[in-house]
Amino acid sequence: MVDKVRLGIIGLGTQGGMYAKMIDEGLVPNMVIGAITDRDPAKREFAQSTYADVPVYEDYLEMLESGDVDAVVTTVPHFLHPEMGIAALSRGIHALVEKPAGVYTKQVKELNEFAATKPELTFGIMFNQRNNPLYQRIKEIVESGEIGKIRRTNWLITTWWRPQGYYDQSAWRATWGGEGGGVLVNQVPHQLDLLQWICGVPESVFAKVAYGFRRNIAVEDEVTVVLDYGDGATGVLVTATHDIIGTDRFEILGDKGKIIVDDSKTATVHRLVRDEREISDTMSMEEVKQLFMGKQDTEALYTTETIEYTRPWGAQHSGVLENFAANILDGTPLLAPGSDGINGVRLANAIHLSSWTGQEVPLDLDEDRYLEELNTRIRSEGKFPERV
Amino acid sequence: MVDKVRLGIIGLGTQGGMYAKMIDEGLVPNMVIGAITDRDPAKREFAQSTYADVPVYEDYLEMLESGDVDAVVTTVPHFLHPEMGIAALSRGIHALVEKPAGVYTKQVKELNEFAATKPELTFGIMFNQRNNPLYQRIKEIVESGEIGKIRRTNWLITTWWRPQGYYDQSAWRATWGGEGGGVLVNQVPHQLDLLQWICGVPESVFAKVAYGFRRNIAVEDEVTVVLDYGDGATGVLVTATHDIIGTDRFEILGDKGKIIVDDSKTATVHRLVRDEREISDTMSMEEVKQLFMGKQDTEALYTTETIEYTRPWGAQHSGVLENFAANILDGTPLLAPGSDGINGVRLANAIHLSSWTGQEVPLDLDEDRYLEELNTRIRSEGKFPERV
Repeated sequence: MVDKVRLGIIGLGTQGGMYAKMIDEGLVPNMVIGAITDRDPAKREFAQSTYADVPVYEDYLEMLESGDVDAVVTTVPHFLHPEMGIAALSRGIHALVEKPAGVYTKQVKELNEFAATKPELTFGIMFNQRNNPLYQRIKEIVESGEIGKIRRTNWLITTWWRPQGYYDQSAWRATWGGEGGGVLVNQVPHQLDLLQWICGVPESVFAKVAYGFRRNIAVEDEVTVVLDYGDGATGVLVTATHDIIGTDRFEILGDKGKIIVDDSKTATVHRLVRDEREISDTMSMEEVKQLFMGKQDTEALYTTETIEYTRPWGAQHSGVLENFAANILDGTPLLAPGSDGINGVRLANAIHLSSWTGQEVPLDLDEDRYLEELNTRIRSEGKFPERV
Repeated sequence: MVDKVRLGIIGLGTQGGMYAKMIDEGLVPNMVIGAITDRDPAKREFAQSTYADVPVYEDYLEMLESGDVDAVVTTVPHFLHPEMGIAALSRGIHALVEKPAGVYTKQVKELNEFAATKPELTFGIMFNQRNNPLYQRIKEIVESGEIGKIRRTNWLITTWWRPQGYYDQSAWRATWGGEGGGVLVNQVPHQLDLLQWICGVPESVFAKVAYGFRRNIAVEDEVTVVLDYGDGATGVLVTATHDIIGTDRFEILGDKGKIIVDDSKTATVHRLVRDEREISDTMSMEEVKQLFMGKQDTEALYTTETIEYTRPWGAQHSGVLENFAANILDGTPLLAPGSDGINGVRLANAIHLSSWTGQEVPLDLDEDRYLEELNTRIRSEGKFPERV
């Protein structure tokens, strides 16, 4: 067994370039850059001159078969993640796919099904925000039952303002055929993952999605969703790319408490002394009267804890790379198994489909219908091939 | 012209009792208690002993015809507001109805239509929160166009925790036949009004409503609504009576700014230097790059003002009484014209209907269908007569 994983980076764009730099600077102790692939000659030249000893390829399949890499990361447009993941795994190469795992569930299912036939290989996904200790702690609190069964979730997350120039940077961006969506596939996938990682998978969604609302783009720049978790539990998710004064506020209300997360930095955890229903049922008429006269203090019914962590932002990505490599080297459990990637894609697909049909859509959605609707939009856009 | 309006109070419950006390203590300088009506002998006895010179009636129609009152306030169960309002106006008595104006739009329309035939009489509604200077200021800011055209609204308002004992206080409470709903007709009508008073009337709603979710009641204790204002503008409204650690957070995002109201006490008003779309469209590629490298400061793009008022809570109700009397006495414009009451009722009806049908419902809803659905619930409850 080698002591360092040789990572092949497919696509030296913003993300791929950042990972290369992190590994080169030693931020991922159990990883080295095995090779780099990019179809753009300028990027290859840059790679060659920056990382002198690293082999550089034009074709990623050639890199996969070179013997230079033990694993790859797919920092390429979203549509390509599944096929590249499968190509790597089928050649005995470990695969770390970028988020989102793909654009539509059908292609992600293929990836997951193929990966399941290769249990000896490591299959991960870059959900770096799972590496945020604040969200890890919140997941622990929720899973331990400290705030009880979840009643509702509310996440307003609009802290990613994107001016028109961002969308005009490249031809594939914010197109149906090149990117497969807007804020749902580009900015919010981490929250789609965290929400389900912490609070579970909803049963259905109803969504209002605004396409090219305040930007000159074909895809969505604003999303409003009602989530139904079943058994009376509900939630709301709101996101947009046109809010300069962004809001990031996440509330989780449970039978025994409430967590309020501000700016993904501070969590205020309120723990009730008993189950809320029990407090409600056992309060005497006299106490209820006192309450309405302002003489009963509800604050005596719960404790409040504030949780804050300070940690460099970059450590999230390098942490996922390190955890992925550790899983390969010694079986350390994966923080973000690749097969989890389908949850966010499925939720995004259901949200799109609900907005297109004006109906509530089950998470167990009609995948053929989704792909058909997506292809209708790709066709009328006329810039990229339809998807199968 | 008399210099003080003689108010007849119909129903000496919690609200009626509070208004009597306020007027008696001189908090409403242009009003005196003209008479009091209550069907409960104990309440009449209390009235007699507390307000010695005030005539007390068992039957409100007798009071209306006694010559003792110039105006009435209807502090009685919601269903009764329209018929009592009409009874007063038809006898030349000014009418101030309690909120909500009624339970279903059909009955409120009758009231509004009748009131329109009596323009010489004053017809008001107790929307005391319109008297909150914070919301008045916010309305001014929105109407002046300072934050531009509204893009979205988000109101999470769960600051009215109601234990089971509250619901068990009386037989009509939280029933379909006695009250006509739960949090939508009892707690949130002020917000249903303020939201539309400040931000306009939505075109349609989709709602998830939980009936007896965490309380042993037939009606709703939790509501989640997506509002569609048309032209791409949307909103979310969430309310519940089972959240001890209540949240009250209202955000209004416009083309030129954003207002965040916390706890109905503090408003943070962000004003953009220019229309957001213009900022977005004119930002150069270089500036976009700087932004992503964290070198562009978006805070330079807006100013921030914090608005806070301190004012006694009770002044809201006495202020509405005083404004209503002033309108009678000298034509001072009404802060809350009675005809505005239909907006909140219509929104509440649309929310109920959406939850019952699982469909998005236009605000111009099928009123017969609503009443039919309501009566179905009253019938199966079997405690109160159906409504016509």
